[in-house]
Amino acid sequence: MIPHDLCTDIPVLGKANIVSPIKRVTRSTQRRQSFISDDSRIIVDVQTEYIQDAVDTCQALLSFEQAGPREKIYFDPSKLKCAIVTCGGLCPGLNDIIRAVVLELYHIYHVKTIYGIRHGLQGFIPDYGHDILDLTPETVAGIQDRGGTILGSSRGSQDIGVVVDCLERMSIGILFMVGGDGTLMASKKIAEEIEKRNLKISVVGIPKTIDNDIFLVSRSFGFDSAVDVATLAIKGAHNESEAYPNGIGLIKLMGRHSGFLAATAALAQQDANFVLIPEVDIDLYGDNGFLQALENRVKTRNHAVVIVAEGAGQNFFEKKEKKYDPSGNIVLQDIGLFLKDKITEWFKSKNMDVSLKYIDPAYIIRSLAANANDSVFCGLLGRDAVHAGMAGKTKLLISYWNNHYVHVPMEASAGRQKRLDPNGRLWQSVLEATGQDVYFGG
Amino acid sequence: MIPHDLCTDIPVLGKANIVSPIKRVTRSTQRRQSFISDDSRIIVDVQTEYIQDAVDTCQALLSFEQAGPREKIYFDPSKLKCAIVTCGGLCPGLNDIIRAVVLELYHIYHVKTIYGIRHGLQGFIPDYGHDILDLTPETVAGIQDRGGTILGSSRGSQDIGVVVDCLERMSIGILFMVGGDGTLMASKKIAEEIEKRNLKISVVGIPKTIDNDIFLVSRSFGFDSAVDVATLAIKGAHNESEAYPNGIGLIKLMGRHSGFLAATAALAQQDANFVLIPEVDIDLYGDNGFLQALENRVKTRNHAVVIVAEGAGQNFFEKKEKKYDPSGNIVLQDIGLFLKDKITEWFKSKNMDVSLKYIDPAYIIRSLAANANDSVFCGLLGRDAVHAGMAGKTKLLISYWNNHYVHVPMEASAGRQKRLDPNGRLWQSVLEATGQDVYFGG
Amino acid sequence: MIPHDLCTDIPVLGKANIVSPIKRVTRSTQRRQSFISDDSRIIVDVQTEYIQDAVDTCQALLSFEQAGPREKIYFDPSKLKCAIVTCGGLCPGLNDIIRAVVLELYHIYHVKTIYGIRHGLQGFIPDYGHDILDLTPETVAGIQDRGGTILGSSRGSQDIGVVVDCLERMSIGILFMVGGDGTLMASKKIAEEIEKRNLKISVVGIPKTIDNDIFLVSRSFGFDSAVDVATLAIKGAHNESEAYPNGIGLIKLMGRHSGFLAATAALAQQDANFVLIPEVDIDLYGDNGFLQALENRVKTRNHAVVIVAEGAGQNFFEKKEKKYDPSGNIVLQDIGLFLKDKITEWFKSKNMDVSLKYIDPAYIIRSLAANANDSVFCGLLGRDAVHAGMAGKTKLLISYWNNHYVHVPMEASAGRQKRLDPNGRLWQSVLEATGQDVYFGG
Amino acid sequence: MIPHDLCTDIPVLGKANIVSPIKRVTRSTQRRQSFISDDSRIIVDVQTEYIQDAVDTCQALLSFEQAGPREKIYFDPSKLKCAIVTCGGLCPGLNDIIRAVVLELYHIYHVKTIYGIRHGLQGFIPDYGHDILDLTPETVAGIQDRGGTILGSSRGSQDIGVVVDCLERMSIGILFMVGGDGTLMASKKIAEEIEKRNLKISVVGIPKTIDNDIFLVSRSFGFDSAVDVATLAIKGAHNESEAYPNGIGLIKLMGRHSGFLAATAALAQQDANFVLIPEVDIDLYGDNGFLQALENRVKTRNHAVVIVAEGAGQNFFEKKEKKYDPSGNIVLQDIGLFLKDKITEWFKSKNMDVSLKYIDPAYIIRSLAANANDSVFCGLLGRDAVHAGMAGKTKLLISYWNNHYVHVPMEASAGRQKRLDPNGRLWQSVLEATGQDVYFGG
Repeated sequence: MIPHDLCTDIPVLGKANIVSPIKRVTRSTQRRQSFISDDSRIIVDVQTEYIQDAVDTCQALLSFEQAGPREKIYFDPSKLKCAIVTCGGLCPGLNDIIRAVVLELYHIYHVKTIYGIRHGLQGFIPDYGHDILDLTPETVAGIQDRGGTILGSSRGSQDIGVVVDCLERMSIGILFMVGGDGTLMASKKIAEEIEKRNLKISVVGIPKTIDNDIFLVSRSFGFDSAVDVATLAIKGAHNESEAYPNGIGLIKLMGRHSGFLAATAALAQQDANFVLIPEVDIDLYGDNGFLQALENRVKTRNHAVVIVAEGAGQNFFEKKEKKYDPSGNIVLQDIGLFLKDKITEWFKSKNMDVSLKYIDPAYIIRSLAANANDSVFCGLLGRDAVHAGMAGKTKLLISYWNNHYVHVPMEASAGRQKRLDPNGRLWQSVLEATGQDVYFGG
Repeated sequence: MIPHDLCTDIPVLGKANIVSPIKRVTRSTQRRQSFISDDSRIIVDVQTEYIQDAVDTCQALLSFEQAGPREKIYFDPSKLKCAIVTCGGLCPGLNDIIRAVVLELYHIYHVKTIYGIRHGLQGFIPDYGHDILDLTPETVAGIQDRGGTILGSSRGSQDIGVVVDCLERMSIGILFMVGGDGTLMASKKIAEEIEKRNLKISVVGIPKTIDNDIFLVSRSFGFDSAVDVATLAIKGAHNESEAYPNGIGLIKLMGRHSGFLAATAALAQQDANFVLIPEVDIDLYGDNGFLQALENRVKTRNHAVVIVAEGAGQNFFEKKEKKYDPSGNIVLQDIGLFLKDKITEWFKSKNMDVSLKYIDPAYIIRSLAANANDSVFCGLLGRDAVHAGMAGKTKLLISYWNNHYVHVPMEASAGRQKRLDPNGRLWQSVLEATGQDVYFGG
Repeated sequence: MIPHDLCTDIPVLGKANIVSPIKRVTRSTQRRQSFISDDSRIIVDVQTEYIQDAVDTCQALLSFEQAGPREKIYFDPSKLKCAIVTCGGLCPGLNDIIRAVVLELYHIYHVKTIYGIRHGLQGFIPDYGHDILDLTPETVAGIQDRGGTILGSSRGSQDIGVVVDCLERMSIGILFMVGGDGTLMASKKIAEEIEKRNLKISVVGIPKTIDNDIFLVSRSFGFDSAVDVATLAIKGAHNESEAYPNGIGLIKLMGRHSGFLAATAALAQQDANFVLIPEVDIDLYGDNGFLQALENRVKTRNHAVVIVAEGAGQNFFEKKEKKYDPSGNIVLQDIGLFLKDKITEWFKSKNMDVSLKYIDPAYIIRSLAANANDSVFCGLLGRDAVHAGMAGKTKLLISYWNNHYVHVPMEASAGRQKRLDPNGRLWQSVLEATGQDVYFGG
Repeated sequence: MIPHDLCTDIPVLGKANIVSPIKRVTRSTQRRQSFISDDSRIIVDVQTEYIQDAVDTCQALLSFEQAGPREKIYFDPSKLKCAIVTCGGLCPGLNDIIRAVVLELYHIYHVKTIYGIRHGLQGFIPDYGHDILDLTPETVAGIQDRGGTILGSSRGSQDIGVVVDCLERMSIGILFMVGGDGTLMASKKIAEEIEKRNLKISVVGIPKTIDNDIFLVSRSFGFDSAVDVATLAIKGAHNESEAYPNGIGLIKLMGRHSGFLAATAALAQQDANFVLIPEVDIDLYGDNGFLQALENRVKTRNHAVVIVAEGAGQNFFEKKEKKYDPSGNIVLQDIGLFLKDKITEWFKSKNMDVSLKYIDPAYIIRSLAANANDSVFCGLLGRDAVHAGMAGKTKLLISYWNNHYVHVPMEASAGRQKRLDPNGRLWQSVLEATGQDVYFGG
């Protein structure tokens, strides 16, 4: 259930008075207007039970504003300057997003000045001395076929005031920020500082997470591509494990706080026998522990494939002082190498020869180009980000929810996280596909 | 808007009294029950405007029953025999579906007798003499890596009475039918004949269409894989067209009545300059016609890429007697070859040398294996089909709607079609990405 | 056996007096010089029998000059202007070749003026008005990831005198010509006209043929990539044929005069039951004809996959006046569509229902990017073309022979063709892999 | 230069008296016989200089016997039992080899008893208790689409006497051994033990090495597929390094004693700035050392991509007692992790923030299926292994040399290794493509 306080309205910089330059052809078959009205809203929870409850108790239905082109816009395209920045870890589709934003601004809204900020938030800070890219249709031609981001990225927070100083100096009207939860937090603060200074700068966030764990975002770009590449690693681990007596393939996949990638990849390439995710705690030792279960499996079937999400099993580690990375994320203990050691120790103590292969494909997965499906998705996200910004909306994310593109207030999502429901269909299907419960004792 | 009479209840064969053999592990983190209740329903239309209207006018909200495992089932697994059949044209993912149905029945419900009916509806008819396959986990191991269907398929209708005779003779309890709209119509008639004979046979449909045009099915399996492969043809056509003076690349993609594949592929690989779909009529000749627009484009940019859906431009053809294929579908005139000729004629008459390359990738697209995304999707569709059948439900489709898997009554979908909305976001995005309106005169 | 008159020396423009700017690091492990001497030659025929014969009869051994960097070069890099042109049909790897030539000239020889001639030989002819591209490392960055050719291409011959006029006017020192046999014939004539005018222009050919049929060239670039993509079509045809009762998959592959692609693809994806190539005549009708053999196969195994090279079965067509395309190649009758019709007729006359699917993947195969193997190969071919030109050599092809890169005199190759030997290992392996002889009567 | 003592004759078990069951169709175009004679030999060194020398000094020319079907065979197919075993590390194409051997034996020579030995040499040793697989066309259908080996593998040597006991007990006539240098050494000993016991068992080796470093084998199967997959890792590392300020991508590729894979992959995906291989020693520290060179590059271009072969830089490690793995190979120090640490230390000491990403794709590369090119190659290798064995030849390898398939005596290859020549074209091309020498000081 989605908390009730989340569906605040999307803030606007002012009244949208300018007629959109979008020309909608009206041929015989196309009588209806195709702009989206601000009144068009998408319900958050599609269970009729929830709706009935709300109706019965006279509560408002939670809903999101639908994304898309508005008939009236706030900014004058002939004078507008825009900037786009990509932050945090790489993710397939970043270049697709950049390209879509640029092409939509340039060709559809006729905005000619678009800056690419280099290396994430660092690009706003004079001390780093990063240059600015001028983005045009030529600059972005063909970039969607490459992974990474042509703008570069960086981790870590920067002084919000200095960022807004830069935006002021450059006379930016719309800032497109592509990044994960940390970036969205920063976006929110930047938008607040802009408001405090009474500036007319729209901040539009496009949520990025290869973990697919951003709150109120049902699907994040790049995730599908990540699953595609992850299947190669699973295939490989499976072939290795089958080839050698008592073969064990161990794959670590991304997922700091959520098991979406591990679970989905396990369904895409159904060779895994165990999937370990952050949302489901298990024991390492004991009759009911993972190592015993793995031994049971290897003894029964002579081989095993294990997928572990990077955030799984943090309970295995002894309490130490927590460490933080430059982006303020907790530095997780490396569960992959940890399990590798523990599995080796376990079977050594049992005098069983095993052939353990460990695969960590993270940097290959996150740095390759988007697949066809993500390319379509990124194109639509990027175009909707432009529509939102041009309409003078701010402090919002472009999200995908119940099959529609919507505007989510930054306040509703930033700082919260989406989790895989251990009782939901995804995880239950993983349990059915792996059959892993069979091997746990007790 | 979805017509109001569609959301009838899902018929059942009788009361589900048997406790499901599905074991849901209840560890500390998994207190909640993960079976799905029949009362769990998903709203059809997520626009709040629609909901408010319904509430205001005291009308019931249209909704679909949620798919998933039921706590009580109708069939006794130890005595149940099931059959699965695949009908009509090939589509990526057929083998994934077959595999999922078999593994779910076998491992989760412990149903050991599963028949594979060969070559579609022909397989039920004694005259054809097709054999029956025994499906087990061994039979279906690895089949998801191959395109096509291990069961084979066929086009065309068969005598419904003879089909049901066969089901009776074989003592089938659940029949899984994978096929397109024609198959769903047949499924409905089979279910009606079963009812007439007072038999206890569940008929569960899994909708298949590479055109993605089945009514009340937001996404059909194989479509994403089709887009993937279609991008190769678009890339090729683009490279050919750019290489030669006045180069024109013409690609025909599937879509008998709808432009979903053509439109989506055009967004996935943004090299097309014109997309022609059945839902948007255009003229061939005249100042405002397609050929003049193509000439304008080639004169301006020296090359052009055209994607045409197979059902587009049927208005170009002179009225002739309509022909029908064995499945009862109208045999469309071949718009690809037709356009190829007309383009050649047009430029010849203008004394312009063009280099026209025509690509028809249909049989490559539809016959390859599912991609990772479709594999996940097919796995979940197949498992939900089993859950529905085991619960004694019948005359339903497994559909995906508003991000949930749902049960759609066959009566609500069969014989109707989904169309791409020319005022919707998909088509408007295609117009933005191709810029094709610029080249049309007037 | 290779005719004895072929191994003439490679012509040179003059004495190479300038010290090559190539810096070869000499660390402890690298004492030996790594330039290639003109005396380094590679034997043409590696059978010892041939060598013994030559020795016994005191004949010179046929050999090719080894390609590679020379210690002394002919052109002064600081004053040299080069041009590159791509001609004829597309082929994977064209952009790799262009890139390699440019990077080698620019970074290694420090030649800064490199022109890209647009649209093949047309680019030299003023009447066409095509522009010239300036090629630099920036222009060619990333082009290897795209199919086609950034220079464009065209078919057809042009006036040789006008081409050489253009070279003179532009003060070109080295002309790199990438193209098929027709282009190599033109290259030869251009080189002869240059000689007649006493100009100092080197003409270096890089043979291109997706059919892999250029004489004295054991492997041509793009062929391996073509095989890769062709396997998709074979897989598709196989899946289609297996799915339907009496299913037949018919794939046309390139190969105007040779069956290398058809044969190699049939070995790469061993699903074909018949491979028809130009080098092996067969009958269409009669007890020993192809149609009867196909019927035998379909009756025995219920499905069949047929690969036909585009130049196969020309004997099936009635004698008509021959037609020629702009490049002077004979316009072949379309064997694919012809066979499609004849197969349909045959089975109709036998009252056998078959499901025939015809796939012509030519434009997809030839227009996609090179695979890894071809990328390596193209890089080395392009670099060796530069070494040859810089050394003042002319009227030569860069070829790959007996595992070495070599210089082949244009006179030795142009106008001749390589054929698949029906008694050789390749074709015999195809016969073993398809088992096709079994189905032919007699 | 190849040592002169290598070209001993291929041993035979006895006179080949039986007429080969291979039916060569003789149609009008196929008059010539297509069996290969034992007198057909392929010269080892194709440089004419070498040949001239040999002729001048009256020395015999080194040559290899050509592989292929013989007109007379030694074994009676109706009574023959064969075995095949795969040993050592995984390599793309193992299943293609197994399939080709089985299909050739079964369909072409009509040998019906073919055993698959499980888990390498362990499969011969009773103590391990591994089962034996019966290999038939059905068992091997479709296996070429999967990576790994259906037979399984293992590392480590076994008692040669016990292996030959097993061969005797099972009445094996031909043993096909697929494996690396260690396996070839074992094959040689097995063949010697067989000879000592006066048994009539042919031992045919098919050399396997993902490092492509087997002596007298110009190309080893799986290598091309390995290059394909390695390019993904290089692309990823490049995108990562470009995205972050002072980004460094470090990829470890296979190559225990040779840099073939590292060098070839660097040419296939030309994003690497440094390639480190075992054949070229460099210093780590100092003005002329690698770390300083890397710093120079990062300072100049802000990012760098480094490929290191696993056997490179063993001189960096302090002398310790050498360790050996179960196959008797020296356990190399992990140069990848070592470099990762040293690079981190170096830049820390210089107070430079770098973003270092380390990728080790080994288990993905070696465990995936063969690409099209390798599939063709494996098919031909496997078929030639069968031809050799059927002809009663023994103690030989099937090799590819100067564009021909040949027989190499085990004695000539086993225990020697192929090295990349630092003065050869491959490495010089890598130096040109990376430009790495520029960054080394001095």
